[in-house]
Amino acid sequence: MSVHETSTHRVVIVGGGFAGLFAAKFLRRAPVQVTLVDRENYHLFQPLLYQVATGILSEGEIAPPLRDVLRGHRNVEVEMATVTGFDLEDRTVSATRPDNTARTYAYDSLIVATGAGQSYFGHDEFSRWAPGMKTIDDALELRGRIFGAFEMAESEDDIARRQAWMTFIVVGGGPTGVEMAGQIAELSRTGLRHNFRRIDPSEARVLLFDGGPEILASFGDRLSLKASNELRRLGVDIQTKRVVIGMDAAGVTVKAADGSTEQIPARTKIWAAGVHASPLAAQLATAAGGETDRAGRIKVLPNCTVPHHPEVFAVGDLMALDQLPGVAEVAMQTGLHAALTIKRRLEGEDDKDFTYRDLGSMATVARFRAIVDFRGIRVGGLIGWLMWLVVHLTFMTGFKNRFAALFHWALTFMSGQRAQRTITLREVTARVAPEDAGGGQLPGLREPEA
Amino acid sequence: MSVHETSTHRVVIVGGGFAGLFAAKFLRRAPVQVTLVDRENYHLFQPLLYQVATGILSEGEIAPPLRDVLRGHRNVEVEMATVTGFDLEDRTVSATRPDNTARTYAYDSLIVATGAGQSYFGHDEFSRWAPGMKTIDDALELRGRIFGAFEMAESEDDIARRQAWMTFIVVGGGPTGVEMAGQIAELSRTGLRHNFRRIDPSEARVLLFDGGPEILASFGDRLSLKASNELRRLGVDIQTKRVVIGMDAAGVTVKAADGSTEQIPARTKIWAAGVHASPLAAQLATAAGGETDRAGRIKVLPNCTVPHHPEVFAVGDLMALDQLPGVAEVAMQTGLHAALTIKRRLEGEDDKDFTYRDLGSMATVARFRAIVDFRGIRVGGLIGWLMWLVVHLTFMTGFKNRFAALFHWALTFMSGQRAQRTITLREVTARVAPEDAGGGQLPGLREPEA
Repeated sequence: MSVHETSTHRVVIVGGGFAGLFAAKFLRRAPVQVTLVDRENYHLFQPLLYQVATGILSEGEIAPPLRDVLRGHRNVEVEMATVTGFDLEDRTVSATRPDNTARTYAYDSLIVATGAGQSYFGHDEFSRWAPGMKTIDDALELRGRIFGAFEMAESEDDIARRQAWMTFIVVGGGPTGVEMAGQIAELSRTGLRHNFRRIDPSEARVLLFDGGPEILASFGDRLSLKASNELRRLGVDIQTKRVVIGMDAAGVTVKAADGSTEQIPARTKIWAAGVHASPLAAQLATAAGGETDRAGRIKVLPNCTVPHHPEVFAVGDLMALDQLPGVAEVAMQTGLHAALTIKRRLEGEDDKDFTYRDLGSMATVARFRAIVDFRGIRVGGLIGWLMWLVVHLTFMTGFKNRFAALFHWALTFMSGQRAQRTITLREVTARVAPEDAGGGQLPGLREPEA
Repeated sequence: MSVHETSTHRVVIVGGGFAGLFAAKFLRRAPVQVTLVDRENYHLFQPLLYQVATGILSEGEIAPPLRDVLRGHRNVEVEMATVTGFDLEDRTVSATRPDNTARTYAYDSLIVATGAGQSYFGHDEFSRWAPGMKTIDDALELRGRIFGAFEMAESEDDIARRQAWMTFIVVGGGPTGVEMAGQIAELSRTGLRHNFRRIDPSEARVLLFDGGPEILASFGDRLSLKASNELRRLGVDIQTKRVVIGMDAAGVTVKAADGSTEQIPARTKIWAAGVHASPLAAQLATAAGGETDRAGRIKVLPNCTVPHHPEVFAVGDLMALDQLPGVAEVAMQTGLHAALTIKRRLEGEDDKDFTYRDLGSMATVARFRAIVDFRGIRVGGLIGWLMWLVVHLTFMTGFKNRFAALFHWALTFMSGQRAQRTITLREVTARVAPEDAGGGQLPGLREPEA
């Protein structure tokens, strides 16, 4: 037990994503003692995860240690532990450390910000064949599968099997899916030049599926069309109104709007289709007597607190409020709002409701090409890309990461080269059932079973 | 089957380490068709592996893809496959691809250069608790364990258990062990400053064990003493004439020269004590009717060929010849010798025996401190370190890796910071028995069993 005995107001923050980290940083100015609990040791800059998956950046550049980011915040402690439950009456949070020993954290105010994971819409068995894009481990797994697929194609004599290794399927036409599809296409067209003798990597097929009528629907018709044209120019095959209904090692089964189905042989699949809130949202809702929405998010009051417990905040992707989208900007602002509310209460001031300032959204489509939706101003092409560059450099954590990322971007965007192409044994992870892990082979590269 | 039908002289190289890579590069100038087979997709710059393990460099910087390094060598094909056997009569090599399908490669000349792995001197069960330092996966596993140990210490209230998390044991006082011990000490003294609230990372104990009377014995007494003094100044506890005879999750059992034993609680152990040639050395010896030495290396003729088969070369750490040491320089020179011999034969010239040009050896002890033994000239301190810097930058592959490494060295050596501290699930690898992998916990961080 490590319940701190102190008279200072104790804030426990669960989750070190955008919401949790911004809350912790803001509380530097408040007379509180903060404990930030995360199951990982890092803050993940999730919008650049696709660049780790495609070999542009290393994991350290987008996942700095939380305790290093917060080293100047003397009133913040960071703990690496997995939160397992809440006792809202006792005001404690229970957790498990990496060595499976138990921990309890007592709080006066609690901020829960554990975000969202991938949703396979009831097809959890797909996760084995189509990793999501939510964690560093996801990105490293995909990096191994993508570069490994070209390795396998090079040594495959059978034309049909070679084609299956050279086919990449991205499910989901939101920003993550679009960025992944664009980067795999660019990689195959320029990044692997002169590397192979028997295959031509630029003949790789990249298919982007979306169930709706257009990709990047939230950006509006004009930008959506602009992005589609850029992706097609790169060679991405965009297939809208088509839903992936089946999957195995060999490929996917796709259903069209007219009900017809098609089998597409493809060894590499990436899932970027849906999200579901962290299971802690449902636990917190049960504990508080509240409820969750269809995406598993806990419904909060206008000040981001949970029902009947004004001292408990739920913020970021975990929270359902006013149909706000699950984007980094909402996470940062709700995290700040929770921290500000705690500070105001200690100063005797009344709560305010959360109001969202929409600073716009953006997605990179290809090198030198991005689309930006900024307060109704919609920009594409090179200007959009330069805005993307400035915003991402601004929000990245720490000088060293900014400098290193800028160097690797220059390398990739100018020469097409990728600095991070090492395939490691990390593919043999918990994602694969133990009986599959024999022989030290990479499961993504395994033969489909008969 | 992919036996190439061609009238060009076919060279198969097994292994893309220093020996195999240098052979492949040299053969650019020869009228031959080269197939380089490696079970990994990368060339590993092994002398810098300890910098990946301690968070200075990313894996991509020291492990560039073989096919990218060789992209300009149009007569070289690279295949990712694990060689399983040799048929010296048929002149074929059999291998397994990552998807478990079989391959056969026909050769006119064969160069086997699969190097050496870690040897636990009959205690293979130690490998679970004390990873070696031979592959990228080893280094990433150790990186997770080292940074994870400080995480665990921070949240541990029991003083004895906390001390066990803060104790790091390095077994083996050769260059790798010295460099690891020095870097862990520097990391704890400067790299983690202001990151923790309850522990003082600079109180970490780093113990370096060697069975012999001094560390770095091959460098001679004067440099060995100099290195010992530098390490002690950093806070490394050097324990010579002490052998690790037992190990579990909780610590190690050490035996002194007088026969007495001691138990030392320590959660993090690193094995840098011995090497054993790749199992292919013994297979090749059996196939050729030759023999291996105590370290499992195949005994070769003075021209680096195996007995009775002048068309088959064994080079690098895999080979026993004239008591040559297992260092990168010997690997490069024997690889080049094999390639040169193949070229000379095609030009109708006679074979020459291999002669080793000793260009010296070096080891970094701390930042700005290295020891160098260059043709009898023995240098330590800052001048040695500058020589180390120049040599390593020269031999690193590719501009981008040199530039990135230089940036990260500047960062680490000037400010003490580490760019790569992300702990990922990769710790759950094949190293751990399946029944241990439950719960997604990091095995290195697991509770010792009762």
